[in-house]
Amino acid sequence: MDVFIEPIGKLINEFSKLPGVGKKTAQRYAYKIIGMTDAEAREFAESILECKRKVRYCKICGNFTEEEVCNVCKTREKSIICVVKEPKDVVAMEKLHEYKGVYHVLHGVISPMDGVGPNDIRIKELLARIDGSVQEVIMATDADVEGEATAMYIAKLLNPLGVKVTRLAHGMPVGGELEYTDEVTLFRALTERKRI
Amino acid sequence: MDVFIEPIGKLINEFSKLPGVGKKTAQRYAYKIIGMTDAEAREFAESILECKRKVRYCKICGNFTEEEVCNVCKTREKSIICVVKEPKDVVAMEKLHEYKGVYHVLHGVISPMDGVGPNDIRIKELLARIDGSVQEVIMATDADVEGEATAMYIAKLLNPLGVKVTRLAHGMPVGGELEYTDEVTLFRALTERKRI
Repeated sequence: MDVFIEPIGKLINEFSKLPGVGKKTAQRYAYKIIGMTDAEAREFAESILECKRKVRYCKICGNFTEEEVCNVCKTREKSIICVVKEPKDVVAMEKLHEYKGVYHVLHGVISPMDGVGPNDIRIKELLARIDGSVQEVIMATDADVEGEATAMYIAKLLNPLGVKVTRLAHGMPVGGELEYTDEVTLFRALTERKRI
Repeated sequence: MDVFIEPIGKLINEFSKLPGVGKKTAQRYAYKIIGMTDAEAREFAESILECKRKVRYCKICGNFTEEEVCNVCKTREKSIICVVKEPKDVVAMEKLHEYKGVYHVLHGVISPMDGVGPNDIRIKELLARIDGSVQEVIMATDADVEGEATAMYIAKLLNPLGVKVTRLAHGMPVGGELEYTDEVTLFRALTERKRI
């Protein structure tokens, strides 16, 4: 790093902390910043601080919000709860413009390998939300081992409460080719085949 | 962008301004920032401001510096000047730990297509540096059309001044395979072949 003067080296170091950013990319980013006007750079820095200052977690669903309760929890149909792993999964669902219910962000999945147990994610908070008005809980955790296990674990807790628990369908991705579909997925697609 | 709350959307927008960063990558970066501690985020923002505040151009060579004159110009052998397009090219040269002379950063190359003429880059400043003490000027601009043209243009100006002008060698990249070397490069490698 000694080929860079100190403030540039430091900025490169900061950019390197971003996911998937190596020294070379960080260097390109730093040069971009140096090439910005003062006002642009200030706006950039300010947006980092503002994001950090303003964004907090909705006390009901756990998604990002600027207020105590997020807009989704305030305005949407509360009889369906979609359970996801992280806030970015809410974004993926919202981009569909199809789902009209509310969310519950677990902030993780059960993963004994990583030392994450049921008490480390927001399962208690989910149970507390289940009252007579909730008709369905959609488990929308990832389709990997931890996501599946977490969905099953939560389903076991919720079923005795008389709430319908569903899971996102597994199968071939739309546009996918049979030849390149992995065996596990193909097996699921076969066993869950539907009459057309 | 309406699936993001405003401070997150704004930060994503800022990150999207970095070279090669699309919405999806910018989103990952923004989430990383949100996941940082307050102190980490503050340090990040501060390093942007500090870089912008402290970094300026050396009044001799045009490279980045914190002072009026950069360390290279202050301490190194001034009889050889290496002419490069941008500050990042100085970094590439410095990483060699081989070159002991000073630099001259043009901040661009002559490119009529982009409306960049000889007066738009730091050629005048280079000529002003040529006195009896300068023995060699190494043209280390890129090996593309604009880089070549700029090197030739500057060489024509410098030769009458009695200074030796050299150009980085062209040829096969070390480790490169003949089969995959492009024709122009191979032609240069052939015509500039050396006795071994």
